[in-house]
Amino acid sequence: MDKYLKAALEEAYKGLSEGGIPIGSVLVLDGKIIARGHNRRIQNGSAILHAEMDCLERAGRLTAEEYKKCTLYSTLSPCDMCSGASLLYKIPKIVIGENVNFQGPEDHLRARGVETIVINDGECIELMRKFIENNPTLWNEDIGE
Amino acid sequence: MDKYLKAALEEAYKGLSEGGIPIGSVLVLDGKIIARGHNRRIQNGSAILHAEMDCLERAGRLTAEEYKKCTLYSTLSPCDMCSGASLLYKIPKIVIGENVNFQGPEDHLRARGVETIVINDGECIELMRKFIENNPTLWNEDIGE
Repeated sequence: MDKYLKAALEEAYKGLSEGGIPIGSVLVLDGKIIARGHNRRIQNGSAILHAEMDCLERAGRLTAEEYKKCTLYSTLSPCDMCSGASLLYKIPKIVIGENVNFQGPEDHLRARGVETIVINDGECIELMRKFIENNPTLWNEDIGE
Repeated sequence: MDKYLKAALEEAYKGLSEGGIPIGSVLVLDGKIIARGHNRRIQNGSAILHAEMDCLERAGRLTAEEYKKCTLYSTLSPCDMCSGASLLYKIPKIVIGENVNFQGPEDHLRARGVETIVINDGECIELMRKFIENNPTLWNEDIGE
């Protein structure tokens, strides 16, 4: 597995070990991971800290020039909110671990010029599948259903 | 002025008094303001706490049924991130104080079925115009430019 996606998956497992929703994300700039994040809905009682949002927040206030050189990795297809955050900061590339269990507005990202790559990694799919099967209500809350 | 937009504008002034970017937001459910927020880029060193995000975070973990009865007010046209958060939670109506100084993806919101109302209130316009004039670099950072 791609080392950056692997780092995102490690974040997902960290979230799971905290009793949270197992979705992880990393932000990569010039080949270096500059921030890591995971979903904190349960841990922080948060409505906005999806993995990608947590990762962007932990990256701190970057310049537009820095964002334009970044790649955002997420174990799961980014939802409208997280896709929107990427569009705000004009992050040019997003690598998605899987979009089998959930698919965000990938076409919208592509239409706005974002290189959007879907891996559909088996471990990412299985981790999320099991979590959703065991926690359907919590999962629906996280995606506004 | 609409009392809810007035409350959002009060949040914008609160942000300004803290040395922050003067954008405010409130979330209204069944005619009652259930959360208030303002941009906290400066105050918290935050890349994600735009006014609407701060407001949604302070509202806490609502149910899908609650979000579907909400109206989100913002003194300024919501950016891609904040629009995306509204789409995630299927908030059906957004009232925008002004879109003269900045315009987010309002057409995208409308295409996705969100009732999107622009007031273009003079006080909202003037507050933002002056702030941008005096803080162009900071403002550009906030919108990823």
